[in-house]
Amino acid sequence: MNILFIMYDQLRFDYLSCAGHPHLHTPNFDRVAAMGVRFTNAYVQSPICGASRMCYYTGRYASSHGAQWNGFPLRVGEQTLGDHLRREGMDCWLIGKTHMRADAEGMARLGLSPDTTIGARQAECGFDAWVRDDGLWGEGPDGFYDERRSPYNEYLKSKGYPSQNPWADFANAGVEDGNIASGWMFRNADKPANIRETDSETPWLTREAIAFIKQARAPWCAHVSYIKPHWPYIVPVPYHDMYGSAHVPAPVRDDVEREDPHPVFGAYMGNKIAQAFQQDEVRQKVIPAYMGLIKQCDDQLGVLLDYLDESGAMEDTMIVLTSDHGDYLGDHWLGEKDLFHEPSVKVPMIIYDPRSTADATRGTTCDALVESIDLAATFVEAAGGNVPDHIIEGRSLVPWLNGEQPEWREFAISEYDYSATAHCEKLGLEPRDARLFMVFDGRFKLIHAEGGFRPMLFDLDTDPEEFHDLAKRDAHQGEIDRLYDYLAQWGRRLAQRVTRSEDDIKASRGKSMRRGILPFLVDGSEVPDELTSKYTGPAPRSYLDE
Amino acid sequence: MNILFIMYDQLRFDYLSCAGHPHLHTPNFDRVAAMGVRFTNAYVQSPICGASRMCYYTGRYASSHGAQWNGFPLRVGEQTLGDHLRREGMDCWLIGKTHMRADAEGMARLGLSPDTTIGARQAECGFDAWVRDDGLWGEGPDGFYDERRSPYNEYLKSKGYPSQNPWADFANAGVEDGNIASGWMFRNADKPANIRETDSETPWLTREAIAFIKQARAPWCAHVSYIKPHWPYIVPVPYHDMYGSAHVPAPVRDDVEREDPHPVFGAYMGNKIAQAFQQDEVRQKVIPAYMGLIKQCDDQLGVLLDYLDESGAMEDTMIVLTSDHGDYLGDHWLGEKDLFHEPSVKVPMIIYDPRSTADATRGTTCDALVESIDLAATFVEAAGGNVPDHIIEGRSLVPWLNGEQPEWREFAISEYDYSATAHCEKLGLEPRDARLFMVFDGRFKLIHAEGGFRPMLFDLDTDPEEFHDLAKRDAHQGEIDRLYDYLAQWGRRLAQRVTRSEDDIKASRGKSMRRGILPFLVDGSEVPDELTSKYTGPAPRSYLDE
Repeated sequence: MNILFIMYDQLRFDYLSCAGHPHLHTPNFDRVAAMGVRFTNAYVQSPICGASRMCYYTGRYASSHGAQWNGFPLRVGEQTLGDHLRREGMDCWLIGKTHMRADAEGMARLGLSPDTTIGARQAECGFDAWVRDDGLWGEGPDGFYDERRSPYNEYLKSKGYPSQNPWADFANAGVEDGNIASGWMFRNADKPANIRETDSETPWLTREAIAFIKQARAPWCAHVSYIKPHWPYIVPVPYHDMYGSAHVPAPVRDDVEREDPHPVFGAYMGNKIAQAFQQDEVRQKVIPAYMGLIKQCDDQLGVLLDYLDESGAMEDTMIVLTSDHGDYLGDHWLGEKDLFHEPSVKVPMIIYDPRSTADATRGTTCDALVESIDLAATFVEAAGGNVPDHIIEGRSLVPWLNGEQPEWREFAISEYDYSATAHCEKLGLEPRDARLFMVFDGRFKLIHAEGGFRPMLFDLDTDPEEFHDLAKRDAHQGEIDRLYDYLAQWGRRLAQRVTRSEDDIKASRGKSMRRGILPFLVDGSEVPDELTSKYTGPAPRSYLDE
Repeated sequence: MNILFIMYDQLRFDYLSCAGHPHLHTPNFDRVAAMGVRFTNAYVQSPICGASRMCYYTGRYASSHGAQWNGFPLRVGEQTLGDHLRREGMDCWLIGKTHMRADAEGMARLGLSPDTTIGARQAECGFDAWVRDDGLWGEGPDGFYDERRSPYNEYLKSKGYPSQNPWADFANAGVEDGNIASGWMFRNADKPANIRETDSETPWLTREAIAFIKQARAPWCAHVSYIKPHWPYIVPVPYHDMYGSAHVPAPVRDDVEREDPHPVFGAYMGNKIAQAFQQDEVRQKVIPAYMGLIKQCDDQLGVLLDYLDESGAMEDTMIVLTSDHGDYLGDHWLGEKDLFHEPSVKVPMIIYDPRSTADATRGTTCDALVESIDLAATFVEAAGGNVPDHIIEGRSLVPWLNGEQPEWREFAISEYDYSATAHCEKLGLEPRDARLFMVFDGRFKLIHAEGGFRPMLFDLDTDPEEFHDLAKRDAHQGEIDRLYDYLAQWGRRLAQRVTRSEDDIKASRGKSMRRGILPFLVDGSEVPDELTSKYTGPAPRSYLDE
């Protein structure tokens, strides 16, 4: 079996028709959902691109792998999907974005060069790169945000787009009065991107994915990782005007959220992006573009699915559709992601398993509390391996796909490190204290903030919109304590004993005794003679008189 | 300045005359204490050789580095003293024992060979090995416990000791009726070891240490790491009969400890070594030998100190004397180490700092709550560096040496993983649940056991001998909760973000904006023009009609 692990960037869980969106029709997402299981309670381990992805790719919590924010390098030697799947004989390829930064200092310390296969995989988060393009070719007075070469920009240049950075000037910009109308500015989000649709990012990456699959040696895992619908919010014809103000939902926000807010929430509500999304005009411009980008993703997913159908690969390819986090889009007075309300931390998660063992669950939903790290475990099991649960902290979802009801986790964890942001400084915190932890048990969601702040608490049964922070008042202490106990339990988890499996440990017991380590002998009669035979016999010589 | 980091194995904190031992006179330990500071509340992060040493060598908690028991490999790439000190221009050498197992699988995964300098350091816990000898050359029906070559055995063979394993047959055995009387058997502990004293392990390693120092290029750190007074408990003439039954203290134990004991404590009280040390004859044989081994260590320390004095090295060499854990010796009905009573988890810690900044504290004691991981931080500071506190979790002791009163930790943590022992199986636990955590605030000591057991609690103010486990009854819940809060706080510590320092993070803020990442612009007027200048200008071409 192959694995087609498709990730969209910043795709909200609820912007799909199979998830109930009233206006956005996504027949191809729905087609996969009809063939598989849609997990309706899937949470990322960090609601920010880089950290979330490192969790997906390692199967480990952010605090376990340490790459806790964008651009924090993944430490050299940290094991990834590539390590685990290759051990099972499955190749592991990247087509698109990872947002991974290599641990260049660690690689130098270990003498690893990216020119070697081993070094290249260390530098590419364990993947073999068919094409790596993180899709953020921003440029400012200090140069490019991403200093690598951009395969996508090279593609556009090969197609004649007349620019040094056609990503910025064409794919992510419109035209107004003969001038570039950059997609970075929300006021331009309703313009069509100044690019042939077929040359825009999503169709380009889809073609790369198909080209990969055409030549791939089975079994393979392909991580097809789209930058869209991530900002800049701008999309080419015809997607730019498929949706309009009639399709923009009212923001999910309430004045009560701004009354005595938690200081960290308060700081985020006051930041530039939140202020922008608090303007109705911004939402009216951005959300139709965001929907158009998703619609384009859906159409391209259709192209990919059709190819799998026609080529026969559908029969032996597991398909996974998910996202690295959501997008507030003005909900809760916020833009972007970062915090733990459902629009940010909950993601779509649809899995099609072609095996007949999964026949009984096709087209169903599953409300188990899923963590994004579960995919790594799922993939190892799908590749025929035993999940190395001393390394991978997630749990295989295969039992759910098979219609079983496994004993399952009681809580999900997500983390956010905002030490590199201005909020940390504004709140007067040292970097190490700028960390948040979410504990969610399926009903109550606790957010713990380091740095001496009170927690936040939401009851999603009585307040599914998460307006009422119950920890503002001295109530619900029982629930708060219970969720803090979960967090403490998680804090003691076995995360770093990665060099010894549970089975190895069981098998090792008693071995030192048979290798002559006997620190309990009074006179030797305690053990069979064979264990002490190396310690008995005639003394070859005496030195006692020397 | 150089650093002479001397470790004894299994040396109790209280078996030194400077620490108040009534019979054991250790003038050379006392000499260092008189020149420096003796820390009277120093705790190891795991009371077992291998795990404790990996904490010393990394400056990190056992749960952070993951080598949580003897023989659990230290994961490849985990940074050690060698990495940190070499960065400051200081060499880092090993003379003796580390009990480190290389992560052979991880090294193979990264293509690292022990034949290279980088690979050899990965395989030797970051040290350059002047001589590595772990001092446990046990042999049984399945072969040697330690599969390396033994430099010490080679030394003995070069001296003509007629055996394939003279460590076992001579250095750690007496003679009785012409037969080998193995030191593995407590009944032989009162016999003299059948070896010239000068050829026994402690003098041999002392000579190696001096030979190293003679040729070393300053600045150096030398980890001189003795196997003794670790078992086998047997010592050559004249140390074998310096102490007798008059010098053996009564065991520190009480019948109340055996009444409804904590299940893990109960299991340990029932094991073979505990049963042996519960016999008075065993203590009468072993403790005088243990004292003789320490006396020999003290004499050899004198040889080393004299050499430093004579060579002038004393003036620019920091000297540290410590141990990896203690020895129950029958206290609390136990033998060996493993659990968290003071005789096991508390260690001697004496630091001589030659710099004049430390003049005010010479000959004093310090009762600050010290963790063994503090040494790594101390050494980095002594080498002239800033402590990388995103990697090293301990804190430099230099302020204490300088007579300052720094704000200090509120609690110390120690951990014990007994998954590889028979106790795990007997208690019906899976390996991952066979873990203990100690939280000690200087007065109350809480022991948390995974696996669903109740905690243990001792009040060392009212019960310094730790007989009364206060958690047996439903009392002291306030203290238990308070210490559990500390444990939870520790569980959320920042341990794995090892690729980004606090300073790096502060310096990184705002940089992405100057590299064109501007996800908050409504119309561009929000920022100076220079930040958006790459996104404006005439559109080179329009594709909108294509």
